[in-house]
Amino acid sequence: MNELDVIQRISQRLPGAPPEVIVGVGDDCAVLRLGDRDWVAAADMLVSGHHFEDSWATPEDVGYKAVAVNVSDVAAMGGTPRFILVSGGADNSETTLRCMEGVMRACAEFGVYPLGGDTTRAAALTVDVAILGELTAPPVLRSGASPGDILAVTGELGASAAGLLALQEGVREPERLVRKHLRPEPRVAAGRMAARLGVGAMLDLSDGLATDAGRICEASGVGCRIELEKLPIAGDTREAAASFNRDAEELAATGGEDYELLICAPEEVITALRESLDLPLTVIGEMTESGGPVFLRNGQPVEGLSGWDHFS
Amino acid sequence: MNELDVIQRISQRLPGAPPEVIVGVGDDCAVLRLGDRDWVAAADMLVSGHHFEDSWATPEDVGYKAVAVNVSDVAAMGGTPRFILVSGGADNSETTLRCMEGVMRACAEFGVYPLGGDTTRAAALTVDVAILGELTAPPVLRSGASPGDILAVTGELGASAAGLLALQEGVREPERLVRKHLRPEPRVAAGRMAARLGVGAMLDLSDGLATDAGRICEASGVGCRIELEKLPIAGDTREAAASFNRDAEELAATGGEDYELLICAPEEVITALRESLDLPLTVIGEMTESGGPVFLRNGQPVEGLSGWDHFS
Repeated sequence: MNELDVIQRISQRLPGAPPEVIVGVGDDCAVLRLGDRDWVAAADMLVSGHHFEDSWATPEDVGYKAVAVNVSDVAAMGGTPRFILVSGGADNSETTLRCMEGVMRACAEFGVYPLGGDTTRAAALTVDVAILGELTAPPVLRSGASPGDILAVTGELGASAAGLLALQEGVREPERLVRKHLRPEPRVAAGRMAARLGVGAMLDLSDGLATDAGRICEASGVGCRIELEKLPIAGDTREAAASFNRDAEELAATGGEDYELLICAPEEVITALRESLDLPLTVIGEMTESGGPVFLRNGQPVEGLSGWDHFS
Repeated sequence: MNELDVIQRISQRLPGAPPEVIVGVGDDCAVLRLGDRDWVAAADMLVSGHHFEDSWATPEDVGYKAVAVNVSDVAAMGGTPRFILVSGGADNSETTLRCMEGVMRACAEFGVYPLGGDTTRAAALTVDVAILGELTAPPVLRSGASPGDILAVTGELGASAAGLLALQEGVREPERLVRKHLRPEPRVAAGRMAARLGVGAMLDLSDGLATDAGRICEASGVGCRIELEKLPIAGDTREAAASFNRDAEELAATGGEDYELLICAPEEVITALRESLDLPLTVIGEMTESGGPVFLRNGQPVEGLSGWDHFS
């Protein structure tokens, strides 16, 4: 059983949703209508030995990242992150405190207010963040992609995965790539602008482009074609991939934890969005009628690309 | 450094609160004004080896209890539990799924709707629940106790602690006491009625009467006198305490995890509340001018009673 199975089996047991619930389990966030505003809610947990190793991530890194990845979920709905609850702990209170200092640093960075939570003793450093974000435009779901839509991605791909490879090898450079992995930069302004412009579908790339593009395809009942040559990959990422004997495009397509936004929209919307952003927005493919994601290299399908599964 | 120190050190770093925040870190829940309603928010995490042992708590128990203790925090503010986010995992997906089934069972029991969350791999079974509850009366804080207020408690004390002693000895009986520990019954209706009647201060007894009464004293700047003879202790709890060579009153005063409500209010409010409840409400003492909690036995102070500290 993989993570998706667990979520699906739980989802099947859900009772009827209360009237406040506009979107339930299954997207980057749930959407709640509370009073005169719509809110998004999500949670993500990081656990030592699974999401990171204590040998290469400081407690401050872990706390910071736990907030950042939740902020990214809010960004993927087009929302503004507002409040968090944070729970976590380690096998000593100093490590817990350092982790919470990373949480506070991220709260300051992203303009998020911590409402409380829980600190506890745990054998492995663990931190869970639950987030509430505010919507000022209708939420962008995974299910709104249409055949013919352009598929575009913010920023760059593969840098975080290359940084992770370095950390796993016991080195902390190239520093930019390591930092991309440890201190992701959620794309809040881009997500909000995308929502305002009415893009069709959006998510944040946490589990790798291949897996996450598949999620949009499944939710929207469409397929997509992605050209590996078009993936935005920085020079240092290519060099690092080569030094680890990895194909840079495959790393960028499968590596995970980019926390960039994957956006589906008609061409004119993509153009308008690109003009309003301070960061690159790269067209990497297009949505098709059906069949899930197909990756092409030199026009030929590439087999065997897959993402990250928490129970694999 | 203990849990309180961690929380206090984090709290000192908090930025100015956004206008929606009516109550921030430090009570059972934070209070948010969203649109035309007030909401409470809290989170609590359970970790194997710290809050429970895998040998005596099933994954379903753990998932259920994680929801119940959060519902209890909402009850302690006088709120109605509405929505949760849940994150957690174990070292295999079957255990994770069983834990989530306990979560779903509790959601059905308490009328709470699960908005989503995260499942992951973790060496030790871990589950964190973040909860949103709705207020229909002003929230009851810890800080509203006044000298001369009566101190009362719902239900009974010590049963959960006695059940825990049994579990730690490897036995699963008396079944009622074990169930009290594994499947706590948060006092939602009582909390809501207490809020409606305008009690002065309230919290839910999670860390033991001695510790939690101290929290009300500290937040309210008062003291209290508690008569051990008055603590509501059931016959089977007394028998179990005796069989473990424990003083029943001391167990009830320090054991923790009762998830009963500790309520401070003028005598006439306590009387009105008692008449409107389906469960016992027992007067156990009174609030005094200052000095924190003092426990009396036969009118004499009892020294050395203390509660539970997650980092001790």
